[in-house]
Amino acid sequence: MSKKGMLLVGHGSKLPHNKALIETTAEHIREKSDEFIVKSGFMSINEPRVEEKLEEFRKEDIDVLVVVPLFLAKGIHTNRDIPAILGLGEGERRGTFQLNGKTVPLVYADPIGSDPLLAELMLKNARKAFDELL
Amino acid sequence: MSKKGMLLVGHGSKLPHNKALIETTAEHIREKSDEFIVKSGFMSINEPRVEEKLEEFRKEDIDVLVVVPLFLAKGIHTNRDIPAILGLGEGERRGTFQLNGKTVPLVYADPIGSDPLLAELMLKNARKAFDELL
Repeated sequence: MSKKGMLLVGHGSKLPHNKALIETTAEHIREKSDEFIVKSGFMSINEPRVEEKLEEFRKEDIDVLVVVPLFLAKGIHTNRDIPAILGLGEGERRGTFQLNGKTVPLVYADPIGSDPLLAELMLKNARKAFDELL
Repeated sequence: MSKKGMLLVGHGSKLPHNKALIETTAEHIREKSDEFIVKSGFMSINEPRVEEKLEEFRKEDIDVLVVVPLFLAKGIHTNRDIPAILGLGEGERRGTFQLNGKTVPLVYADPIGSDPLLAELMLKNARKAFDELL
């Protein structure tokens, strides 16, 4: 049975934390759902690059590819640089992706954005910091 | 009754989305908890700056100040630049904060970091993108 492909795109950083965050999040997604084949790639500095992971997906048995930017908010990378790699124009959310022998839809998701879950996360980290203090 | 102060620190961006994200998250935190006086400031590009909001907190009746970087992962900003503004050395998590007439503890929280909630958010955005496609 074919699955959906999910490519998590990270910014990349000279320090190891951004890469660790993206790869751990990919692992969490795999644990939560078997609906997706999840891979992660980076825009800069870290390997593997986004382009390399796209090439890998061409060999997978997927019926759609969703690309999810693991960025906090929309910005130059999410609006312009990532769409350029995906063959999308600025503002385009849908395209196509060539597998070996067939063409499947590609969808480009939003970055994290304003979400009450984000407030939960910040409260959690704030409370953790207090607990360490007291 | 005195409250806790919470300063959300954002990166800042030429585009409006980072600022909107931080300010909406501050609003979500206010809605979820009345334990904190919540303010938000930016490291660069956007106003108000972190320093300006710290000055405002000196006039508030708080018994502790927690500074929470609204960044995805640790990096140069969270490890070095923000601590420098707070009078903390690299790696220090606790300091003091001068109010008008008294000194209160300052605690420096972690950025978002690897958290299963982040995987939830990415799955949510991926599914939303599919729903728009289908």
